[in-house]
Amino acid sequence: MDDFFMQLAMEEARLAALEDEIPVGAVIVYRGEVIAKTHNRKEHLENATKHAEIEAIDMATKAKGNWYLDECTLYVTMEPCMMCTGAIVLSRIDRVVIGALEKRWPAMTTLLEQHQFNHHPDVDLSRYSKECSRMLSEYFRKKRQERLLKDN
Amino acid sequence: MDDFFMQLAMEEARLAALEDEIPVGAVIVYRGEVIAKTHNRKEHLENATKHAEIEAIDMATKAKGNWYLDECTLYVTMEPCMMCTGAIVLSRIDRVVIGALEKRWPAMTTLLEQHQFNHHPDVDLSRYSKECSRMLSEYFRKKRQERLLKDN
Repeated sequence: MDDFFMQLAMEEARLAALEDEIPVGAVIVYRGEVIAKTHNRKEHLENATKHAEIEAIDMATKAKGNWYLDECTLYVTMEPCMMCTGAIVLSRIDRVVIGALEKRWPAMTTLLEQHQFNHHPDVDLSRYSKECSRMLSEYFRKKRQERLLKDN
Repeated sequence: MDDFFMQLAMEEARLAALEDEIPVGAVIVYRGEVIAKTHNRKEHLENATKHAEIEAIDMATKAKGNWYLDECTLYVTMEPCMMCTGAIVLSRIDRVVIGALEKRWPAMTTLLEQHQFNHHPDVDLSRYSKECSRMLSEYFRKKRQERLLKDN
């Protein structure tokens, strides 16, 4: 089922791109059921903390009725940043499936390895890693072109 | 002015304790003006991400009208966790004044030293560090007593 849920997260990432947001989508699954499905809304909400994962944790928390997201798997199209890694640890999510790995500021994959925390989610890389990376690089290429056109 | 703003944050921490939350308060100051003043609301909102710092960043973002919290100082009565450290970096807060240092899971003080990020806030320890620690240990002592009474 991992492929199916990651595809849902990728659909959300596409929606983010359409809204001129960095294309990151996130889905949270609890006992086989999707309880959160959303995307990065930082620009729309003008708030640096509104990453897809934080929004998904908010939704899942409301759906589950409490903050303890055990038995939950988070599917996210890009490696979580430090803030989101912290939120994942705090909300006790069991497992995280990552799309694109973050090359410049790898957070989740390095922080969880190098530091001790009171909860360690399992982390897997999705089969759709390349597609997720491509979505991000296409978005940034388009943004650079727009900036160049604007500057000339 | 650091002492005055940390006292405001400590007032917020006291409010948190009255609401049966771990007593952490946070204040954000922009060009000498308080634009956010709040406390930990994790239990009340049943959401693991609702730490005082995240709530304060949300408030400051609304007050300032954008996510870029440059020229802002965050006063927080306890060392920020990994999630909050990430949110502070993402929102580009200039400076953080910490009350109690976290002994078991030091995040902000270690993560910022050991990793490269695209923004590094200045971090200072408040003169009220001991008072902030005392507030936390008193809260946890009371909680332990309550649990003992309940179990017997």
